[in-house]
Amino acid sequence: MDIGGSGEFSLIAAIRRRMEGKYPPEVTHGIGDDCAVLQPQGDVEWVITTDTQVEDVHFRRAWLTPYQIGWRAMAVNLSDIAAMGAQPFGALAALALPTTTEATFFEQLLNGMCDLGLQYNCPLIGGNLARDPTRLTLTLTVLGSVGRGTAVRRGGARPGDDIWVSGRLGGSAAGLRTFLHTVPLPAAIGNSLRQRYAQPLPRVAEAAFLRASDRLTAMIDLSDGLAGDLGHICEESRVGAQIVAEALPLEAGVREVAATLGDDVLEYALRGGEDFELCCTAVSGALAPLVDDFRAQFGIELTRIGSITREHSLRLVHADGSEVPLSAHAYDHFRC
Amino acid sequence: MDIGGSGEFSLIAAIRRRMEGKYPPEVTHGIGDDCAVLQPQGDVEWVITTDTQVEDVHFRRAWLTPYQIGWRAMAVNLSDIAAMGAQPFGALAALALPTTTEATFFEQLLNGMCDLGLQYNCPLIGGNLARDPTRLTLTLTVLGSVGRGTAVRRGGARPGDDIWVSGRLGGSAAGLRTFLHTVPLPAAIGNSLRQRYAQPLPRVAEAAFLRASDRLTAMIDLSDGLAGDLGHICEESRVGAQIVAEALPLEAGVREVAATLGDDVLEYALRGGEDFELCCTAVSGALAPLVDDFRAQFGIELTRIGSITREHSLRLVHADGSEVPLSAHAYDHFRC
Repeated sequence: MDIGGSGEFSLIAAIRRRMEGKYPPEVTHGIGDDCAVLQPQGDVEWVITTDTQVEDVHFRRAWLTPYQIGWRAMAVNLSDIAAMGAQPFGALAALALPTTTEATFFEQLLNGMCDLGLQYNCPLIGGNLARDPTRLTLTLTVLGSVGRGTAVRRGGARPGDDIWVSGRLGGSAAGLRTFLHTVPLPAAIGNSLRQRYAQPLPRVAEAAFLRASDRLTAMIDLSDGLAGDLGHICEESRVGAQIVAEALPLEAGVREVAATLGDDVLEYALRGGEDFELCCTAVSGALAPLVDDFRAQFGIELTRIGSITREHSLRLVHADGSEVPLSAHAYDHFRC
Repeated sequence: MDIGGSGEFSLIAAIRRRMEGKYPPEVTHGIGDDCAVLQPQGDVEWVITTDTQVEDVHFRRAWLTPYQIGWRAMAVNLSDIAAMGAQPFGALAALALPTTTEATFFEQLLNGMCDLGLQYNCPLIGGNLARDPTRLTLTLTVLGSVGRGTAVRRGGARPGDDIWVSGRLGGSAAGLRTFLHTVPLPAAIGNSLRQRYAQPLPRVAEAAFLRASDRLTAMIDLSDGLAGDLGHICEESRVGAQIVAEALPLEAGVREVAATLGDDVLEYALRGGEDFELCCTAVSGALAPLVDDFRAQFGIELTRIGSITREHSLRLVHADGSEVPLSAHAYDHFRC
């Protein structure tokens, strides 16, 4: 049966029943009215973001299960909440779907979206269902909460600050390429790379840990690729940056994929995008004492990859002293 | 030049510049970071809604100017904020656009969206731009503020309550039909009907006036048609409703369009949808003293059209005493 058989309002009723009892104190009323009703708790500020995933632009059905399509649409938004150091508490899902969408496809898509959301204490509190003649478009809006005046923005980086990234880079771009090309890889590594693309884990707790240290000067999530996203920090902070090529922590298997396809492996980390790791800046030396704790708590690395400079350029330096200017251009939807 | 020539980030920068200095106190930081940062002001609760307009589903480019496409996407969301009796204060716009979209088309779309938004004190505070291979999809999310505990919901209608609507009904459906069919009408009336469809005026001040009377038991905006939307109030309130056919205030020209096309004129009001008027309930007699004030302040009527009943059905009664059961089904995206 396709969703044309059940209808818009019974689909909404099913989502509503599923969310009952799952709302945090911030959500006075969730699904079921013209608007959700919200109530600030304590001395906080709220953050809000929206992000769209378009079929055949951000993903293809051949690459992702419906569960992963839903998961990913939630993940990319939670990652923006993480980038502010905030805790998500509710999401609105505006979904445009062909009438021919199978009911089981829709249910699995919703499962992926809700499983990830609830894992991060972020239930669906509202949304919209509409028909699209040909393709899936998923626009989620997510709200988060953070102590008043403590949201970490892009504009606070200062010359001399260290630049850090969480986890490992390039995995999502490499995973995507294994959908497009045949790359001989051990199955476990191939699957792990594809998982990086298909089911990213937003670094919400990691970002909150870093924010709580009170040592961050700026933070962003890596959605467009390190060069572009660090470029956003530099632009907002009116500074430049120098990245050490050899310091970039690459995901296992990324070198092999790049070598097989004749690509420059650094491009995967710098331009690949969609790693959804954190990139943050802090006064020189301030985060180094937290690296072991970070690894112990989250099972991933926190790596210093360079420093903020006074001159407004982005440069990639190599261990041998050679240097390449990097354009700060991120992935651009209308230029590709 | 199309938007592929200017690029995503320069488009965002242009919107950001345009909004500078226009943020209300609730918006600490608007466009320019991973999230907007918000700060509740006073003893309030916030409401939030999201709504999508899909090209060739909700509108066709042949019917609307780009300015009207943008206006309408903002209007349908502001109308949901109005339905809670709240005041909007910020919107996020997630736009998916073909790369071939002309820069002037995009600018006019933005003009329509921003002109209406700013007229209602609702600047763009964030959003997302993405490529869509074939069509425009506009998903807006709007935030509003209302005194704590005073948001008007759907679930408070009680048997014996009066049912009221603002303005006149059926105009949007009739206007839409004049795009689809040739209907001989005086030019002024044809234009006015098409305007009802193309550039609806959300009833934000009207709803706040009614809410402030402290006499409302439930409210909704008429997006799916009176039968469907009043059906939502009945369902949430666990009551029924009786509407008096002759009491329905029809927009000028609606009868002529229906007669020309051989349609039942009541269907335009009951099922046509997209009038974006208010439908509210109040204890019997409680709103009658406000009707003259309402007309004087807003230049539109407030009309009593029926009453809430104990039995859970929706009925249309005629002056001659005849009665027709109404299905509460609203416009359903996946059934049409």
